[in-house]
Amino acid sequence: MANSLPIWQIPSGVRDVLPEEAWCRRRLENRLSSLFESWAYQEIIPPSLEYYEILKDESPEEQLFKIIDRSGRILALRPDLTTPIARMVATHLQGVSLPQRLYYFGNVFRYEDVQTGKQREFRQAGVELIGAAGTGADAEVIILGVEALKACGLTDFQVGIGQASLAHGLLQEAGIPKKEMGQVKNLLLRKDYVALEEKLEKVGLGAGGRRLITNTFSQRGSREILNRVRPLIDSPVLKGAVDNLEEVYESLEAAGLAGHVFFDMSILRDFDYYTGIVFEGYALGLGHPVCGGGRYDGLLGRFGWQVPATGFALGVERALAAAGRGKPPAAPDCILIGKNIPELFLEAARLREKGMVVEIDVGMKSKEEVEKRARRRGISRVIDAGEVKGHE
Amino acid sequence: MANSLPIWQIPSGVRDVLPEEAWCRRRLENRLSSLFESWAYQEIIPPSLEYYEILKDESPEEQLFKIIDRSGRILALRPDLTTPIARMVATHLQGVSLPQRLYYFGNVFRYEDVQTGKQREFRQAGVELIGAAGTGADAEVIILGVEALKACGLTDFQVGIGQASLAHGLLQEAGIPKKEMGQVKNLLLRKDYVALEEKLEKVGLGAGGRRLITNTFSQRGSREILNRVRPLIDSPVLKGAVDNLEEVYESLEAAGLAGHVFFDMSILRDFDYYTGIVFEGYALGLGHPVCGGGRYDGLLGRFGWQVPATGFALGVERALAAAGRGKPPAAPDCILIGKNIPELFLEAARLREKGMVVEIDVGMKSKEEVEKRARRRGISRVIDAGEVKGHE
Repeated sequence: MANSLPIWQIPSGVRDVLPEEAWCRRRLENRLSSLFESWAYQEIIPPSLEYYEILKDESPEEQLFKIIDRSGRILALRPDLTTPIARMVATHLQGVSLPQRLYYFGNVFRYEDVQTGKQREFRQAGVELIGAAGTGADAEVIILGVEALKACGLTDFQVGIGQASLAHGLLQEAGIPKKEMGQVKNLLLRKDYVALEEKLEKVGLGAGGRRLITNTFSQRGSREILNRVRPLIDSPVLKGAVDNLEEVYESLEAAGLAGHVFFDMSILRDFDYYTGIVFEGYALGLGHPVCGGGRYDGLLGRFGWQVPATGFALGVERALAAAGRGKPPAAPDCILIGKNIPELFLEAARLREKGMVVEIDVGMKSKEEVEKRARRRGISRVIDAGEVKGHE
Repeated sequence: MANSLPIWQIPSGVRDVLPEEAWCRRRLENRLSSLFESWAYQEIIPPSLEYYEILKDESPEEQLFKIIDRSGRILALRPDLTTPIARMVATHLQGVSLPQRLYYFGNVFRYEDVQTGKQREFRQAGVELIGAAGTGADAEVIILGVEALKACGLTDFQVGIGQASLAHGLLQEAGIPKKEMGQVKNLLLRKDYVALEEKLEKVGLGAGGRRLITNTFSQRGSREILNRVRPLIDSPVLKGAVDNLEEVYESLEAAGLAGHVFFDMSILRDFDYYTGIVFEGYALGLGHPVCGGGRYDGLLGRFGWQVPATGFALGVERALAAAGRGKPPAAPDCILIGKNIPELFLEAARLREKGMVVEIDVGMKSKEEVEKRARRRGISRVIDAGEVKGHE
């Protein structure tokens, strides 16, 4: 028996969602879709499978779940929805006026190390604001992200904002060779500053360049840090990136969010498509961000439509975990019993038309037995279809 | 360029769902979940990926999308949700009293021949009634299936009912060798009676046996056909299966569905787990059933809990196609413009609190230009946040 697989095992990193959690999740998703629709976002649904070519440039290859097609082509399960939506918009929606506001729900698949507490299949909700550049669009997406956290029932959360263009620009200006960029970014993403120092020295950066990078990326705190970052940089483009950060912050402040927002120059996000402001939402007691996103002005161009865009994704399971369990699903309003099956269904239909949640006792048990079971489940009414008079 | 893959292609058999269809689909799914909950069903959510061992006995191997895990184990994308739910119930819910009523929504994946119009990824809604045997349970699931078709907006539909146990029993009694059973069933499923005749002769069935099988399986019509089937069979078990069909029919008749229901002895369904009554729902003008299901009393036993069960699944895309397009998503109630970004978001929040769908003009365009665009999209109000007085 040693080699036999217990047939009830499930693969690492996927989950069974039982009724109580599913109930909370459905209500959470309904609140989120109402929120997104009230901001004039429309739902869009990409497929779960894409050609590998579509996905491979944006996400670490080792994260993709690949499937070989019978015709020999490589497919992959989507690791996020932003890339498939960029493809869809560039393919189908070039005729629709800009900006376009889109939202989505969907499962994503990443070959994560499950030891770190990450899942390999998880559910995301999110929005994409396509065809809008500038501070207003950046602010809209971050404020909507905060509203989404609130709609999830979170009160104790923080939002960190950073600048992917500043990060990329600094690394480029420092003269890090292109082929080393991936590894350097990975160390930054993991905030492993000791290994980063070693790596930067190895690729030939002098003490000044190394200090510039570690000094900038370790800046984290309130608005004043922008004044510490500004003197470190020369390029007008990078200075503009810092100005954009400050302008967006002012909108967030005006929206009453100053107490929730801080700056963090180390936020890089794990997809390569970000080109501007990036942000992450954190909830008390959760080791990973609940939501994250930012500006990605180059992604749609890959699919033939060069338009700016920004958006965020929210981890549905993480939001549920952070918000804590809601109340469990309600018990049925009544159990209907009876000896005549057709009559039972007719009476059930009448009661449901009045708005009641009706469970039928298909087991044909005695009224006493059903009443005992109903009490245990907190159901106060057991109705005998045969005793209902006049059907009113 | 001949060999290069246009990057905007998607794999065969998967679909891009654009906002108009997504809007209809969300509303349809909300109606279905309300319906299922009013019948006291609770949602359950299985993972998309299972170990191949869980799925391989119930569905044709060539239909499964397989993935080799990095540890060498074989995973597969679920081809239906009934098997994963049976595993979940047997694993997690043995402590919950029976019967259990569960419903689900989820994408399923099958390596179908796309030439036949079938999709390789599609969405199913469905219910499982676990731990209930007998006519009442059979009738509940079929009536709920019909209610689901109505909730989808279908009026012109038919439901065919058959008996998997009669079909399996007849083929066994006729003495068809076990290893030929799969092929014989496949021919029956495809209703290829010419090839079936040949096959039955080849496996050694005499003219009488062949006639019994083709005679029984070709019976299709109203209640009288049961009287034509009864004299053809001897075994009391199979006679009982016919009686079960007739009793369930009487409940459907009493529920006012006689005009929608017919008997069809050739309905076999494409999963191997069915053991009793089976049914399919058809919509006018659609080449494949919109929904289907039946009794599967052996499936949970495979996962260690021997309890009877029945259920159905409905194809969400097929139901949407059959019901025709609903009205398109409504346009926003207003577009909000303004020169001061923070003010814009504050005013938008006030309007949304009053229940309005508000689109913000993040592009900072002139009022005239926004009004022109708004008219084209059927949006009557353009509000200038800077001109709003007293915020009432």
